[in-house]
Formats: sequence, structure tokens, C-alpha cells
Amino acid sequence: MRITAIPGDGIGPEVMREALRVLSFFGGRELKVDVAHAGRTAHDASGHVLPEITERLVLDSDAVLLGAIGDNRPGDYEDGLRPETALLALRKSMGCSINLRPILCTAQPLGSRYGYAAGSDILIVRELNGCAYYGRPRGTRLVHAPSAIVPEGFDTMRYSDAEVRRVARFALEAARHRRGMVLSVDKANVLSTSRLWRDSVASTACEYTDVHLEHCYVDSASVEIMTRPHDYDVVLTGNLFGDILSDQLSMLPGSLGMLPSAAVGHNGRGLYEPVHGSAPSIAGLGVACPIAAILSLAMLLRHALGWHAEAAIVDAAVERVARALPEQGVPYGKASSASTSEVGDAVMAEL
Amino acid sequence: MRITAIPGDGIGPEVMREALRVLSFFGGRELKVDVAHAGRTAHDASGHVLPEITERLVLDSDAVLLGAIGDNRPGDYEDGLRPETALLALRKSMGCSINLRPILCTAQPLGSRYGYAAGSDILIVRELNGCAYYGRPRGTRLVHAPSAIVPEGFDTMRYSDAEVRRVARFALEAARHRRGMVLSVDKANVLSTSRLWRDSVASTACEYTDVHLEHCYVDSASVEIMTRPHDYDVVLTGNLFGDILSDQLSMLPGSLGMLPSAAVGHNGRGLYEPVHGSAPSIAGLGVACPIAAILSLAMLLRHALGWHAEAAIVDAAVERVARALPEQGVPYGKASSASTSEVGDAVMAEL
Ligand SMILES: CC(C)[C@H](C(=O)O)[C@@H](O)C(=O)O
Ligand SMILES: CC(C)[C@H](C(=O)O)[C@@H](O)C(=O)O
Repeated sequence: MRITAIPGDGIGPEVMREALRVLSFFGGRELKVDVAHAGRTAHDASGHVLPEITERLVLDSDAVLLGAIGDNRPGDYEDGLRPETALLALRKSMGCSINLRPILCTAQPLGSRYGYAAGSDILIVRELNGCAYYGRPRGTRLVHAPSAIVPEGFDTMRYSDAEVRRVARFALEAARHRRGMVLSVDKANVLSTSRLWRDSVASTACEYTDVHLEHCYVDSASVEIMTRPHDYDVVLTGNLFGDILSDQLSMLPGSLGMLPSAAVGHNGRGLYEPVHGSAPSIAGLGVACPIAAILSLAMLLRHALGWHAEAAIVDAAVERVARALPEQGVPYGKASSASTSEVGDAVMAEL
Repeated sequence: MRITAIPGDGIGPEVMREALRVLSFFGGRELKVDVAHAGRTAHDASGHVLPEITERLVLDSDAVLLGAIGDNRPGDYEDGLRPETALLALRKSMGCSINLRPILCTAQPLGSRYGYAAGSDILIVRELNGCAYYGRPRGTRLVHAPSAIVPEGFDTMRYSDAEVRRVARFALEAARHRRGMVLSVDKANVLSTSRLWRDSVASTACEYTDVHLEHCYVDSASVEIMTRPHDYDVVLTGNLFGDILSDQLSMLPGSLGMLPSAAVGHNGRGLYEPVHGSAPSIAGLGVACPIAAILSLAMLLRHALGWHAEAAIVDAAVERVARALPEQGVPYGKASSASTSEVGDAVMAEL
């Protein structure tokens, strides 16, 4: 079994270090781990956001564990050289079209702002290879404004019936093994893409009479789910709405720093990464919370390697550590007082 | 002065009734109010979501007060006949490209979930005539999927430099008269449209050295603003992101039922409407909260008619009533116990 670990940018290397410590706990197994570079770090070192050697390693491995890619200076790069391009290219070339983002609210620290969400358990199933993220044509062109010729930026939002059915089927199957409910989120009162989305989801659901399907516009979904998280089970969305909703719902368990994700595809290979980004403002300070990265590793162990027992051990250790952590509510992707390595130490001690 | 009142669909007529009662309090002034129909109600009566007579009245009036348009059965309509088409056509034909959605958190009822937001005051400035809402081409077409020919839905997202500068200038001017800060929200790490947006906002802001401008990706903006509302002043966004963010931020003051909006344009005419939708699930029950509609009327009095004193009187009456209302947190667009007409009565009594 081969894993490629891509620490990436910003807080990526810091949280990756702790995840790899956890992985080393299960050493002695037949597992080869290669470290590769992508994103801004890779660009600064080699001039490429996704070096060829990284691409080769990725295609040779059973799974990829990723820290974070991106930074907050989009203006500094030419199109196609922005760090995020590497992430989007990886997701696409690996065929990872289904993004699983579990929002699990276990017991919450006393006084948490979102204490009412304790006990809720939502699985976001986000399509990851389509929508405005990859649609063509896109770019910049000149257009006539009333009194002058000005530049305009444009993108194409699109979903085919086949793409929607694939992710819808995944969500419906997942719901079958959970509480049997799917909320599909779109903007069908405005977008043609969403009307196709809604029709394709509804018709796929006909084969799943045991699953209860509802549709909701993205604007009210954002209110409804935040307000009554216990009423929702699987939330199915497209790439762009899923991006916004998953960050937003991450407030419920207290912090983005706690949320793992898996991107899986038809060919079985998966990309495992925290939901949080590279958080440049706290990079290098040693305060980023490594829990999302460690839980992403647990997802990798379970889904990519089939190491169910080991994954459960990691999950349990993290849960005990998270319970003991001070409130997570406020800082973005960062534990409020424990340092990155202290949290890593605590997880190792539990293991 | 002429006003067209469009009660519309769902709870629209119920909340409009209370707003018109408040308007009648200022009777005896030179003001003509016409009632016109649009949306599903108009479609059911005349076969058109935006009857010609409504269009004529609207273009003859100084301002439009709207209840709500839309319903939750998009599948029932052919393209172009959905009720929301009327709303989008009104916004466009009136040239209302700038949507103001104030999120004002005055004192909150004790025990409110979002009590921490008390005292925060955010003005959302949303572009309303562009983005994927109107971009062409859009529609459905056949494409090749790996093994078959399948339908695909598609939309065009677009913004020209001129459109962005117009709304950016408005936001920057507004910030000058407030706390001097603008947060511009986009997805510039993925979308070409957003990169143009970011560049045009930044270059417009060069003329406003007294205003502090920041840029933020929409996914993290949704977390940041909800978490630290006091740190934000004017939030500038495009049509689609503004739709989602404004519903989401409506949780802060307690309920969508409290939030008014104004859509204004270059020609001075404005469209005033609650942020909440037609809420079909509670339509006809007499439980919808009319406060958003009444506050939208106050915005109309102030911005369209220049009746500043009258607008202030309405705002103050509503604030006193809202303070006395039970917690608003949970139900969508609905006061938790007072009925629509009871809230209207209370406002009239305060006047
Ligand atoms: C970094 C960015 C391209 C990415 C996305 O938008 O998908 C991130 O926000 C995420 O949610 O994984
Ligand atoms: C009804 C719908 C078309 C509308 C929009 O998306 O603009 C509504 O959600 C709003 O926010 O005013």
C-alpha cells in the first residue's frame, strides 16, 4: 500500500506533521509513505504549483493525504499558477468527484455558542468535479458598457444528468445506512443548472423509495440547517454551494479545525484533507488545530486501506482529546489555547 | 407621488396588509397607492407572472413596495413562467442593480441564540442585476457522457468592470457615512468572474483612501461574519453570494421576519421588499411576521419619498414592538407567538 502525503501551504505542514506521527503509531505494517509538494510551497521551490514528480507519485498511490493548499494573495499569480489550481487539478485528475464532509457534533464544551447542536450528525455529500469550478468557457473578455469598452469576467456553471446521478446515488446509498433522509440543495428558482440538478436527483431517488428526499434553495438551506441541525441527515449539494455550506456548518461542532473530509471517485483512489484551508494568518505559529488532519487520516485508513479497527482507535482517541480541549468556538482553524504539537501529543498519549 | 404595492404570493398579501395600514397612518399626504399583481397569484389569475398592467403601473410610479414572490413548486412551471421570473424581470426593468440589506441587531430578547450579536450593525450591499442570475447563454442542452448522450443544465456567471465599479462605489460611499469599512466577498481563488470583481473593487477603492477595504472568500466570509459580526460594517457582494449571505446573516437579529431591503438603481426608482420569501408552508395562517414588510415601507418613505421624519417614526415604533416580542429565533419568517395582525396592531398602537 502506498500513500502520498502533501503537506502543502500555510498551516498544512504543521498539521501534517501531527497526522504523520499518528500514522507512525501503526508502523510495521506494509505501508509506504511518500512526501510530495504542491501549491504555493511547490511554486516557490520549483516554479510549478503541481510538479510532475508529485503527479506521478499521486497516480502511483492508493490514497493522498493533504494538509492544505492555497494562500490569500490571488493577485500575485497569473491564471493557472495560483496554488489552488493544484488542488483543483488533483481532485480532477484523481477522478475524485464525491466529497464527503461529515459534521459530527459530539458532546460540546460547556458554554459553546452552538451547544444546541450537540448530538447532531450531518453528512455533506458535495459534488467536486463540476459546477462553475471547471465549466468552460471561462476567463476575461472585452464587452461594450454604455459608454466604453470594459473587461468582463465570466465562468460557466454546468452539470450533466450523468454527473448529478452519480453523486445523488452516492448520497442516497449513504442515507440508507444512516437515518434515511437526503436534503438536496440548489437554486432551482433561478439557475438552469439547478433545475437540471433537481430533476436528476428526483429521478435517481425513484429507485430509493426507502429514502426520504427533500429539495431546498441554498439561501434558505443555510438558515434551516444551522437552526435545526438534528432534522437533517445527508445534505447533497453541488460544488459551489457545498463549498459555502460546509464552511458554514463547520461552526456547529465549534471549529473548522475539527473537520475532516474525503474526496472519493469511481476508481477507488481518494484524497483526504481537512476542510480548513491554509490559514496564512496563523501559519508558522504552531497554534493550528491538527484534529481535522488527524481525522482525515482516520478516514483514509478506513476508506482507502480498509483498516477499520485502526481508524476507530484514532477516532476514539481524538474524541477524548477534543472533549478535554477548551472551547473551540472562535478562532479560525486553531485550537483556542493548546498548541498544534500539544494536541498531537495528547492524541498520541491516548493511542 | 405614486407607489405601486404588489402583495404577491404566499405570505406576501398578509404582510402587505399590515404595511399598508402603517402607510395609511400618514394619510392626507399627496400619495397615490395602486395595488398590482405579480408572481404565482398573477399567473393563476391571468396566465402571466408579470401582467402588462403591472409593468405599466410600476414604470409610472416612484417606488414599488413588494410583499413576496415565489413558491416552492418550480417543477410546475415552464421556464419563463415561474413566479420568480416576475421578480427578476422587475429588478432588471426598473434598473435596480443595488440591493441594500441592513442587518441591524438591536437589543435581543434574553436567551436568544445569537445574543452575542447584540449591538452589531452590518449593511449588505448586494449587486442585483448580474452574475449567474441573468448571464447568457443559459439553459439545457445535450452532451456526450462516457456511455450516452445526456442533458446538461448550464448558466453563465459574469460581471463587467463597469457593473462592479457601480456597486463598489455605492458600498464605499455608504461606508464613509458609517464606520468606514468594506468587506468584499468573492471566490477569486476559483472563479474568473470573482478575479475581475476583486480587481475592479480594489481599483475603485483607490479613490476612497479613508475607507478600509478587505477581501474575503465567500466560504470563510460566511464563518467570519457570523462569528464576529461587530468587526464588520459594509459587506459588498455579487448577486448569488449576496443571496446566500443575507439569508444566513438574518439569523443574527433573530429572524428573517425582521429584515427589510431596498433595491435602488441609477434612475432613482426603488423596489422595497422584505428579505424573506413567500414562505408557502405558513401562508394563509396569519402567523407571518409583518415587521420586515413594515421596515421595507420605512425604507421606501426615507429613500424614495424623502420622508425622513415619518420613516424614523415607523422605525422607532417597530423597535419598541420588536423588543416586546417573544424570542424570534426559530421559525422561518414568522413571529413565534404573536399573529400577523397582532404585530400590526402593536405597531399602529405605538404610532
Ligand atoms: C481552496 C479552495 C479551492 C477549496 C474549494 O473551494 O473547493 C476550499 O475552499 C475547499 O472547500 O476545499
Ligand atoms: C426569490 C429569489 C429569486 C430571490 C433571489 O434569489 O434573489 C430571493 O431569494 C431574494 O433573496 O430576494
